Amino acid sequence: MKISDLAKKVQAGDLKMHHFEQYFSVEDSIEKRQEIVSRITKSKLEKISDFSMSPKEAARKNCENMIGAIQVPVGVAGPLKINGEYARGRFFFPLATTEGCLVAGVNRGCRASMLSGGVKTVTKRRGITRAPVFKTTGIRESKKFAQWIEDNFEKIKSQVEKTDPHISLHKIKCWRVGRSVHVRFVFGTADAMGMNMAVVACDNVIKNLITKKTGIKCISVTGNMCSDKKPTAINFILGRGLSTWAEVIIKKKDVKKVLKVTPEEIVEVNTRKNLEGSALAGSYGFNAHFANIIAAMFIATGQDPAHVVEGSSGITSAELEKNGDLYFSVHLPSLIIGAVGGGTGLDTQKEALEILGVNVTKGNPGDNVMKLAEVITAAVLAGELSLLSALAANDLARAHVVYGRRKKYKT
Amino acid sequence: MKISDLAKKVQAGDLKMHHFEQYFSVEDSIEKRQEIVSRITKSKLEKISDFSMSPKEAARKNCENMIGAIQVPVGVAGPLKINGEYARGRFFFPLATTEGCLVAGVNRGCRASMLSGGVKTVTKRRGITRAPVFKTTGIRESKKFAQWIEDNFEKIKSQVEKTDPHISLHKIKCWRVGRSVHVRFVFGTADAMGMNMAVVACDNVIKNLITKKTGIKCISVTGNMCSDKKPTAINFILGRGLSTWAEVIIKKKDVKKVLKVTPEEIVEVNTRKNLEGSALAGSYGFNAHFANIIAAMFIATGQDPAHVVEGSSGITSAELEKNGDLYFSVHLPSLIIGAVGGGTGLDTQKEALEILGVNVTKGNPGDNVMKLAEVITAAVLAGELSLLSALAANDLARAHVVYGRRKKYKT
Amino acid sequence: MKISDLAKKVQAGDLKMHHFEQYFSVEDSIEKRQEIVSRITKSKLEKISDFSMSPKEAARKNCENMIGAIQVPVGVAGPLKINGEYARGRFFFPLATTEGCLVAGVNRGCRASMLSGGVKTVTKRRGITRAPVFKTTGIRESKKFAQWIEDNFEKIKSQVEKTDPHISLHKIKCWRVGRSVHVRFVFGTADAMGMNMAVVACDNVIKNLITKKTGIKCISVTGNMCSDKKPTAINFILGRGLSTWAEVIIKKKDVKKVLKVTPEEIVEVNTRKNLEGSALAGSYGFNAHFANIIAAMFIATGQDPAHVVEGSSGITSAELEKNGDLYFSVHLPSLIIGAVGGGTGLDTQKEALEILGVNVTKGNPGDNVMKLAEVITAAVLAGELSLLSALAANDLARAHVVYGRRKKYKT
Amino acid sequence: MKISDLAKKVQAGDLKMHHFEQYFSVEDSIEKRQEIVSRITKSKLEKISDFSMSPKEAARKNCENMIGAIQVPVGVAGPLKINGEYARGRFFFPLATTEGCLVAGVNRGCRASMLSGGVKTVTKRRGITRAPVFKTTGIRESKKFAQWIEDNFEKIKSQVEKTDPHISLHKIKCWRVGRSVHVRFVFGTADAMGMNMAVVACDNVIKNLITKKTGIKCISVTGNMCSDKKPTAINFILGRGLSTWAEVIIKKKDVKKVLKVTPEEIVEVNTRKNLEGSALAGSYGFNAHFANIIAAMFIATGQDPAHVVEGSSGITSAELEKNGDLYFSVHLPSLIIGAVGGGTGLDTQKEALEILGVNVTKGNPGDNVMKLAEVITAAVLAGELSLLSALAANDLARAHVVYGRRKKYKT
Repeated sequence: MKISDLAKKVQAGDLKMHHFEQYFSVEDSIEKRQEIVSRITKSKLEKISDFSMSPKEAARKNCENMIGAIQVPVGVAGPLKINGEYARGRFFFPLATTEGCLVAGVNRGCRASMLSGGVKTVTKRRGITRAPVFKTTGIRESKKFAQWIEDNFEKIKSQVEKTDPHISLHKIKCWRVGRSVHVRFVFGTADAMGMNMAVVACDNVIKNLITKKTGIKCISVTGNMCSDKKPTAINFILGRGLSTWAEVIIKKKDVKKVLKVTPEEIVEVNTRKNLEGSALAGSYGFNAHFANIIAAMFIATGQDPAHVVEGSSGITSAELEKNGDLYFSVHLPSLIIGAVGGGTGLDTQKEALEILGVNVTKGNPGDNVMKLAEVITAAVLAGELSLLSALAANDLARAHVVYGRRKKYKT
Repeated sequence: MKISDLAKKVQAGDLKMHHFEQYFSVEDSIEKRQEIVSRITKSKLEKISDFSMSPKEAARKNCENMIGAIQVPVGVAGPLKINGEYARGRFFFPLATTEGCLVAGVNRGCRASMLSGGVKTVTKRRGITRAPVFKTTGIRESKKFAQWIEDNFEKIKSQVEKTDPHISLHKIKCWRVGRSVHVRFVFGTADAMGMNMAVVACDNVIKNLITKKTGIKCISVTGNMCSDKKPTAINFILGRGLSTWAEVIIKKKDVKKVLKVTPEEIVEVNTRKNLEGSALAGSYGFNAHFANIIAAMFIATGQDPAHVVEGSSGITSAELEKNGDLYFSVHLPSLIIGAVGGGTGLDTQKEALEILGVNVTKGNPGDNVMKLAEVITAAVLAGELSLLSALAANDLARAHVVYGRRKKYKT
Repeated sequence: MKISDLAKKVQAGDLKMHHFEQYFSVEDSIEKRQEIVSRITKSKLEKISDFSMSPKEAARKNCENMIGAIQVPVGVAGPLKINGEYARGRFFFPLATTEGCLVAGVNRGCRASMLSGGVKTVTKRRGITRAPVFKTTGIRESKKFAQWIEDNFEKIKSQVEKTDPHISLHKIKCWRVGRSVHVRFVFGTADAMGMNMAVVACDNVIKNLITKKTGIKCISVTGNMCSDKKPTAINFILGRGLSTWAEVIIKKKDVKKVLKVTPEEIVEVNTRKNLEGSALAGSYGFNAHFANIIAAMFIATGQDPAHVVEGSSGITSAELEKNGDLYFSVHLPSLIIGAVGGGTGLDTQKEALEILGVNVTKGNPGDNVMKLAEVITAAVLAGELSLLSALAANDLARAHVVYGRRKKYKT
Repeated sequence: MKISDLAKKVQAGDLKMHHFEQYFSVEDSIEKRQEIVSRITKSKLEKISDFSMSPKEAARKNCENMIGAIQVPVGVAGPLKINGEYARGRFFFPLATTEGCLVAGVNRGCRASMLSGGVKTVTKRRGITRAPVFKTTGIRESKKFAQWIEDNFEKIKSQVEKTDPHISLHKIKCWRVGRSVHVRFVFGTADAMGMNMAVVACDNVIKNLITKKTGIKCISVTGNMCSDKKPTAINFILGRGLSTWAEVIIKKKDVKKVLKVTPEEIVEVNTRKNLEGSALAGSYGFNAHFANIIAAMFIATGQDPAHVVEGSSGITSAELEKNGDLYFSVHLPSLIIGAVGGGTGLDTQKEALEILGVNVTKGNPGDNVMKLAEVITAAVLAGELSLLSALAANDLARAHVVYGRRKKYKT
């Protein structure tokens, strides 16, 4: 059939483009869709269709109806010495971004931190969460049901862990309101981010154990107490994925030399902006721009960019040392990432992980994701430090102007 | 100098890679950095360095220290008929994603919506915000200063509008606490997202008017009452960028046929999950997964992916009609996008915009971004509808399993 | 009829005690209810029935089914010199409380503030709010409706102001979601807190203008965007009732002498507790215990104690001056009070207002409530200062032990 | 010395009124302060000084600088049959309030609930919390410190429980940010509300164990992660004090007869107001007016009225049964009350507790506070049901007018 005819059928809804793979190779399916979409929307798709990654896995696991690839420029910042629990040594950060100044800013933060010996990082596994909501006849049955869940933790754990060798059940917590019982499962998922595993495990344990034994119906395998990809107090308070911390103490003279401000000025901006301003705004993010660095690192390393939402929550601390130096620290309660699965296996993303030395074929299961977490957190610290300094120096506008249209720039 | 020597210098912090463009062409600078990073980190960077987009603009405006491009698979969903104020007709949505099921889900939502005639959309310009924080001697001076700002709105507006022909000042609102005065400017920026313009305008009006006339010092050009890329009540309540709405009424039989559930079941999941569950979680997002669709559309069309944070806030409504049909609606208070600037000019992103018929060389200034907003909101509705249905049908786990490892799939 | 027979009927639900006033005097009605309740519940009610206030007004306007009065001990703190816009001079604060240490704490704060010349206060009228929710056919009609409200502000204002000579309409703001339109009215109500006036005015303008002209039905005269007596971001951000500020600069030596700590220690407790701790807790109250002082002043002066909810929101600021002195400040965004109406006319409450020199028969309408607001805010500052000092001095536990069981105490 | 001379000294700050009890009897001290305040402020204090309660305990434990008592009218609502875990039988609710309509509203809710057999209640002990904040040298020491706390739970528990025979330690949870470690202790305190006990216990365990063993300094015995008397997500999510639930199913005809509306209308108001409206407002209170009933019951029974803040958080649920009846339920996550201590021992408050049959000299320790919690929650349900019905019936304004100025009224 001619493309023009196919296009008409697709346009009319009579032909489903996701069926192509049933009849054609992945490459041909992609090409046909390109031609059809191009024809219907009068767009060229020359560059979208010209990609270097292998579409086989992508079209199968990551993206239905694939027509090509979007290309996001990636720059590197660093080196930054990280003295972490899993990340140790000098790192370069691959940042996939379209926002001028971002790579330069992280880079400057790295430079200032390097002069004082680099950053320390600490991590804590929280676990990925999924919270189905159940419906009972009323508050007494809800109480009984929540009690049943608590009493049968070991059985539930055992059933959960049958679904996948990589999943483990850490905790369960119930909330009751009206006839609903919201049950928040917290899972360990080794090096994977683990949302899919968690869904499958919940589905399994609900159908094959919980509802079977109690008769209580599950209304939805997620009832938003998880909570996935929404800004919430619960994840800010209880954490989700990984919680991380990074800190650095920078000598007064290095602050002045590289960041062009005094430690006092950085502390004041942090207090008035990140604490007071965010307080006034009713925020779960007491920081300047965690989201920028997280988004750039997430896209580069094949993370789910919708998890930038949770990643944007967190707190920046700045204190003046007695000797006049700067104590600077960031805390991310909910960094949701994986070192395997999702987009981490795509060709360019895999290379970005290689730059960071994150390789799931090596090391203990679970350690790679911890390393990646520390690296991202260190980059967040560097970016945060640089932006707060630029703000304190009254220099942001100039930077934007210079970078946006620049011939050359200096950091 | 040999690459190995350059690498050593970079590794030691003695050579700054962002200076390369001063001596070499953009292409050569990129290549040298690739080689250096590759050597230092023992990574190959074969695919990252093999991109089709032109690096000239990218390396200048979007990404310092560029070493190549990350490729994100892009699929299309649709067609969906949109009956909006700016978007009218049948649309295909380019979604850049690595999450299996996402394109398929949006596609299914489109199909269900098409059977009932497509979706309606409505938009409202809120304006981009920037909120510097000033420091006074105390609460009386703060009051006087806030009054001065209010009294001199026209002068401030006039000064702001000198910085750029595309910027206009809509509103100013002050908050006072202790010695701080937080001043939230709301700007119109035509088809651009406008953050950079807003920073430059604030900087200009502060230095050349506000501080000059009042003597009150600006501590930071942003004090987090903006609030940019953090989850906040203020943006949820007052809006930022664009506020949008989309709705559809789907016949009971079409809900059953395409979505495999009843309208009653969708309403119940929406109430227990999106309203009650999000309430319990202390959330600013009363929806299932706005962030997924927004992230995918943002990456495809060159938006700032950190603005997914604001985009994830919003509310999904579902009501049962008297005749048994389903009323379904989404509301996004803070959709922060541009049809020009940022990453919209990059080659693949420009093509994604072409698929949507968004072209800033045509139409009235400001209309293109409104059209893009409606299109994104319609896609959000489709994705939200499909996921809530899958949840109500108890089908999410199966979908994940099937999609993640599938040979073929059916929607 | 005998009391025992009446009691049986009441117990069975056959006799309504609120009908008594139709047949007996207020005093007799109260007495009969005392006897009946006493008999049914086997309680004595000796003290509850022994009160000195006149029940006439109380039983009519403030409390149905009245059986007597609860007595709350009231103590005084002060004097404190207030240098405000409406409150000027030395004040004693009547605090009705059952919490040991509270009066003593406020008293200590007054003493420390007095040594440095007293406190400054500033006020701003926000207006009382009421936000009905309307239902339309969908997002387009909602937009039209919101536009109609905006376009007809003057007509709406004129209709509102017919309901009561003391009410005025300041502002209207609409929020749209799904088929709902939430319309937040902001009213001026002179010296009254004004909730009742606001309800009556909304009811009037909805029935006689808005629904009449637009045909859009009001689902509820309040749709929680008001928001009354619930903790909300909207009132924290936009304010409700009155917004107030108070500040004091206390000499380093006076801080040490009276508060037994250094300014640095107070600043540190304020940062780690009131800013950082409240941030972590997901709070709308960045203070130590505004609610305590507000509750005590509210009960003493006849305010609605449920408005302690809004009053508990607010921010305490502490800064170290260059010369080592302490800058200390409190900000209350939503202080909801009246100098007339509610419980302000009850005998003991009226006397408490007299202690403060608040007298609605004097001065300009509206000024009395401003004065009361400044007085309450000054008391809040004093109480906040004292508690933060006790915390910094590691002295809270001792104070509680001493006060709770004390023979004598020293401040 | 003459009163006029004393007054001058007090006015000048040279005489401290809280020293009077060292020289005079409680009664005389109160009288002298009355005279002094009366003279200075030119107020009469006739009614404030005319109280029936015994001042001995009050002036010692509850209120320093006592000058008398504030009288708050108290009315009764009921009877309501409660079918709870601790509260069983028919109850009358003493409500101390100055807000017309409140007693009448609760009364109406009782009547409607009685027709369908009364309400069910369920309770859960959460425990009172206190969260000191500690300061370390940095993120590594913070991690170690948090680990130490976890590892030494039994020792900490044992030390805590030495401070008071009524206190027990349930849980500890740490949060780390920058150099701060916030440690949230959760205590059981039997029938007491327990804040004072908790402070003393924390102080004890910090000084005698935690700091002694670890060397880590406590900055403040409370760091706002408790969080006491501030609106917070943490208490909404984790609960504080007691969590309670109440529910009732009311027949369609009884809804119509007593509440003058249909179940459908109540469900719609609940959805648009309590869920959607509160969502839009960024609220932690998804209810209509929990705070009103809680404040009135708290003042009547000698609770701390500042805990109305936590009590105002909670969720109301309304569902339509298949047979057209109304399912109605309230949930309070953080009801902070005591059956002993605080103001519960004051004469009139003790009588109010007698009306409810709450008597700490009987029953198992801890059971009385559970009973009181259920009773308050049942009253909250009744009040909530009545107000939502009045709103649905478009009747609130009329009620306010009628009650405010009424000769007679009907419910």
